[in-house]
Amino acid sequence: MDQTAFMIGFAVMSLASLAIYAKGSKAPPSRHHTLLHATVPFIAATAYLAMAFGIGTLLKTDGSATYLARYADWSVTTPILLSGLVLTAFHDRGKTGEVGGYLTSIIVLDVLMIVTGLISSLAEVPVVKWVWYLWSCAAFVGVLYLLWVPLRAMALERGHAIGSAYAKNITFLTVIWFLYPIVFLIGPEGLKIINDAASVWAILVMDIVAKVIYAFYAAGNLDKALHDHERRA
Amino acid sequence: MDQTAFMIGFAVMSLASLAIYAKGSKAPPSRHHTLLHATVPFIAATAYLAMAFGIGTLLKTDGSATYLARYADWSVTTPILLSGLVLTAFHDRGKTGEVGGYLTSIIVLDVLMIVTGLISSLAEVPVVKWVWYLWSCAAFVGVLYLLWVPLRAMALERGHAIGSAYAKNITFLTVIWFLYPIVFLIGPEGLKIINDAASVWAILVMDIVAKVIYAFYAAGNLDKALHDHERRA
Amino acid sequence: MDQTAFMIGFAVMSLASLAIYAKGSKAPPSRHHTLLHATVPFIAATAYLAMAFGIGTLLKTDGSATYLARYADWSVTTPILLSGLVLTAFHDRGKTGEVGGYLTSIIVLDVLMIVTGLISSLAEVPVVKWVWYLWSCAAFVGVLYLLWVPLRAMALERGHAIGSAYAKNITFLTVIWFLYPIVFLIGPEGLKIINDAASVWAILVMDIVAKVIYAFYAAGNLDKALHDHERRA
Repeated sequence: MDQTAFMIGFAVMSLASLAIYAKGSKAPPSRHHTLLHATVPFIAATAYLAMAFGIGTLLKTDGSATYLARYADWSVTTPILLSGLVLTAFHDRGKTGEVGGYLTSIIVLDVLMIVTGLISSLAEVPVVKWVWYLWSCAAFVGVLYLLWVPLRAMALERGHAIGSAYAKNITFLTVIWFLYPIVFLIGPEGLKIINDAASVWAILVMDIVAKVIYAFYAAGNLDKALHDHERRA
Repeated sequence: MDQTAFMIGFAVMSLASLAIYAKGSKAPPSRHHTLLHATVPFIAATAYLAMAFGIGTLLKTDGSATYLARYADWSVTTPILLSGLVLTAFHDRGKTGEVGGYLTSIIVLDVLMIVTGLISSLAEVPVVKWVWYLWSCAAFVGVLYLLWVPLRAMALERGHAIGSAYAKNITFLTVIWFLYPIVFLIGPEGLKIINDAASVWAILVMDIVAKVIYAFYAAGNLDKALHDHERRA
Repeated sequence: MDQTAFMIGFAVMSLASLAIYAKGSKAPPSRHHTLLHATVPFIAATAYLAMAFGIGTLLKTDGSATYLARYADWSVTTPILLSGLVLTAFHDRGKTGEVGGYLTSIIVLDVLMIVTGLISSLAEVPVVKWVWYLWSCAAFVGVLYLLWVPLRAMALERGHAIGSAYAKNITFLTVIWFLYPIVFLIGPEGLKIINDAASVWAILVMDIVAKVIYAFYAAGNLDKALHDHERRA
């Protein structure tokens, strides 16, 4: 049954990658956002293919599984999604050093959130599992702080159109990303309230929302904002 | 006998790294290309040293070897070579966000090509091996598409001199890179038509062409193009 | 006893991360340096937490330990510290491609220095250990060459204020970084002149100097230099 979910994930993500590229803007100032959003589901498709073959799937002594392919996927795709938001906040004004500094910080916190989540998943002693879960949440708080405080202030300085598109996009991403630690918490890697199959299907739906639906939603908001921004400038 | 190939690889690559730096331009606008091209064989030298000591060399149940050091080398050196081409295509005009977006996409596809190639090399069940080989080729097609379509169009917008240097460099790289999946296909990791020693020597020659000869060829084309470009501007 | 050192490391590094962010500049042109310097001890705190739990700690056949968490920490934190110096040297003038090329080269050499150091630590045959130790030192020489020759020349071109701040910062970093290969050499991973506990405490002190004291020292020099630089411009 789980194999079905993984094969659906592979099919949806590969087709979504092509569809996002085909539908997206191919001209400045947003063509690089199209590429970033099309790259994300290509990575996810590769991870789902690996899970379908059981590559990187660890069965632990308590019978639960840790899918390493997921953590590898997330540690590359979530930085790409955050990069799109950082580039929106700095639109047209960021100097190389400034943009690079913000990107580095938010990506480091984000990757630490995922790596410490993986350590939590693999830990067998409860106190170890929950210390790492909390440290992962602390890194998540850091990511949200950067998105909602300094970067939002910068996006607003770019004017109403860009500020408003940025706010819509981080709201969508924040809501969907909040579900991941909750599913981890109640799933087989955490409190084992839901089983592996339920967790796999839940994450499949969340991945499609966070990577595919979000790509179209974010591109729509950004293209409209850049259109208004250029008209006024 | 293979040890000889690895020691030659180490010696050639270390000396080439110094030679590329010594001979290369140390002034703008191309000094950073000199650094990038000198860094590539330094990484390769480290990988050949590891292979000479058997570090990261896995012997599989069918008797064939997978050299992890190669895949680690390629997953860093090929993104650097692609970066040089992306920077050429965007010469002097790329905004931080745009250049970063194109770099991210082409590097992700390139690294996925290498990682999925490694999974194919390690797979023992034929259907698994060939599914991953094909997925690796799909990622390679994505890399070639970005190099030959959107990035080539951008290089041509920079004028004839840069457009022509860019076209020469991607032609050289495309031809030599095409040999790698072919040697993989006929070598011990694939159909086992040629043996390990033949594959090691073939890849040694290809690595020297793709990393050392290419460095001098690409720098020659770029320096000439930038000279013409500045004179006209 | 070593657990104490690791718990102290975790506590100092987490608090230092918050303190560096709280005390640092939140306005251009140096707010991104504040973020970079605050990110570094957050990573170190995560590594010390892992070491406190024994995660990634390998006990070798000669009884000595290799702490993988340290090498993972260093392979991310040292590139961030070097990035701050590269951005200082190129202040306000670097084009995306140039800055990216220098960053790539110095980070590749730096990460190779750490990875080859790890191989040296894990090697059991003395000749293998010392060949990799020497290759790691060769990469360190490359990092120092880039910091002290081309990048220092660039920092001086930016004027006296920035040139002088850059020189102070690389002097501090060079002195403290020189201690790491020395402690490795005399410690349990090398000649075994000092034991594991002595090495752990020594590295704790060095980590606090290189990541926390340095953050305040470097920010002080840079803020003063940028103030003088803007006043004159």
